[in-house]
Amino acid sequence: MPLAEKSLIEGIRRSARQPGGSVRLGIGDDCAVLRPPKGHQILVTTDYTLENIHFRRSWHAPEIVGRRCLTRGLSDIAAMGGKPLAAFLSLALPADLPQRWVDQFMRGLLGLARECNVPLAGGDTAQSLEGILADIIVLGSAPNGKALVRSGAKPGDRIYVSGELGGGTAALKEFLAGRKPRPQDYPRHFHPVPRLKLGEFLRVRGIATALIDLSDGLSTDLGHICEESQVGAEILADQIPRARVGRKRDPIDLKLALHGGEDYELLFTAPARKHVPGSVAGVAITPIGRITPDKRTLLRTSKRVEALEPQGWEHFRS
Amino acid sequence: MPLAEKSLIEGIRRSARQPGGSVRLGIGDDCAVLRPPKGHQILVTTDYTLENIHFRRSWHAPEIVGRRCLTRGLSDIAAMGGKPLAAFLSLALPADLPQRWVDQFMRGLLGLARECNVPLAGGDTAQSLEGILADIIVLGSAPNGKALVRSGAKPGDRIYVSGELGGGTAALKEFLAGRKPRPQDYPRHFHPVPRLKLGEFLRVRGIATALIDLSDGLSTDLGHICEESQVGAEILADQIPRARVGRKRDPIDLKLALHGGEDYELLFTAPARKHVPGSVAGVAITPIGRITPDKRTLLRTSKRVEALEPQGWEHFRS
Repeated sequence: MPLAEKSLIEGIRRSARQPGGSVRLGIGDDCAVLRPPKGHQILVTTDYTLENIHFRRSWHAPEIVGRRCLTRGLSDIAAMGGKPLAAFLSLALPADLPQRWVDQFMRGLLGLARECNVPLAGGDTAQSLEGILADIIVLGSAPNGKALVRSGAKPGDRIYVSGELGGGTAALKEFLAGRKPRPQDYPRHFHPVPRLKLGEFLRVRGIATALIDLSDGLSTDLGHICEESQVGAEILADQIPRARVGRKRDPIDLKLALHGGEDYELLFTAPARKHVPGSVAGVAITPIGRITPDKRTLLRTSKRVEALEPQGWEHFRS
Repeated sequence: MPLAEKSLIEGIRRSARQPGGSVRLGIGDDCAVLRPPKGHQILVTTDYTLENIHFRRSWHAPEIVGRRCLTRGLSDIAAMGGKPLAAFLSLALPADLPQRWVDQFMRGLLGLARECNVPLAGGDTAQSLEGILADIIVLGSAPNGKALVRSGAKPGDRIYVSGELGGGTAALKEFLAGRKPRPQDYPRHFHPVPRLKLGEFLRVRGIATALIDLSDGLSTDLGHICEESQVGAEILADQIPRARVGRKRDPIDLKLALHGGEDYELLFTAPARKHVPGSVAGVAITPIGRITPDKRTLLRTSKRVEALEPQGWEHFRS
């Protein structure tokens, strides 16, 4: 049995011993078998984590790669107001990868799985000819018809964001400049936490009209809500919570907060009459603007109003 | 939008227009939303299809790669006696891959999806630095507690196999010998059909005590049933249906039929008193041996009885 397979199977076995959960049959058959909660729909998301595209071995410790890999999937479940049921990992590894790397990757992934009470219920292993290739699949559930989608924003709704923005890309900028950012100075990059409790809160309380997670950056992901909801938006530049990073905890540039990705915070809209708390499960919630009827997305600064064009965070790579 | 993404999204949109199905929300949100049938469990399988590991661009036309990619997932659903609900595709492509290749790959994959009435409901796209990387995820369903697993074989059960064995690896052997096998001479390799109808028949009729699909080869997959069921087996060499391939339709070597993989036929056990038809949905069913109480796997030829050791089909690669 190749090393990757052995490590994955052991990880799954360890994970499957967790109490509770809806996994009826994990490893050892052609499929995993899940029993979804009655009256619930199933949510499905898949996300690649590829070496030298999504991470670099020289930048990211294996535990961090594993944690970030699972965060991508869990954040998509949070962005529907769902509860995760189980995760699946397809993992292809080069023949010369040290077993230590795989073990530490699995430790990071399974650590987050435990924190979020999500069993790893299966997956696939293969050899890769070049680079580490991981595909994370997460299944979740939400009561029938209650999943929070992107398409429900209405003119007059307020726009809210959780946490602080731009910290994910700020760390990448440091790497790209040849520096070595310390994990404790960039927690959102090195230790992301999917906002599952907030997503569920918004669904259960019936607060959000539209919800998305910030994986591509505020300007792009707000664009997705506006496009799917057929509305526009006006964002107040001064209101945007800019991440404080580095040794001095300086707030980052507005541009990074507007366009930087991989923050895995939640962006949502809610009717103006709805009370939205200032924080949920210890995470700050900040109003940053409002939905408008005309389909433009605008940024209002103290000096002027300008168009807010979607810019992917890939923009910062080159 | 990169070409891969465009093509995948178009493919999903086309596929999502199919009538019926349990997909409530396909592309255009953080997750796909499925409504599983009431009183059913969810089956989940993921399978990598990686360039130069699972296929070669110089050997396999893109339609065939797409068809084989989805076959891997659907065959796992068949191997549980399940019904497929939806497929998801994570696809990473090199920047210089011609759009034509992607279009034809999607045509092959979506053609089989239509044949099997399975919508493609989502996935992920990314750039790859090296090679074409596909991960297919298939969700299926089976009534609660009714999925057919590997662990139910009992001593005295008869062992059956569908179709003919070894055709998948026979084509690979031709390629490795520098020849160019014609698709019409090796249909199981170039045009595999997942045995969904047979799997469902075995579940609905309550015939099979254990079921698995032949992806790794008879000797290996029979070993899986024996291990999970804590039993042994005796196979009759003369009874094994050997694929007839090539221009002359010669039956292949017994070794290929015993150890060759990627046939995607079904292997199952059934009590001796159960009537098993000679064919189901046009596919022949052949009895090839019986389950024994002692945990050895034996092969009985006209001359002697020998141990049948599991040999992966990777064996034939070098």
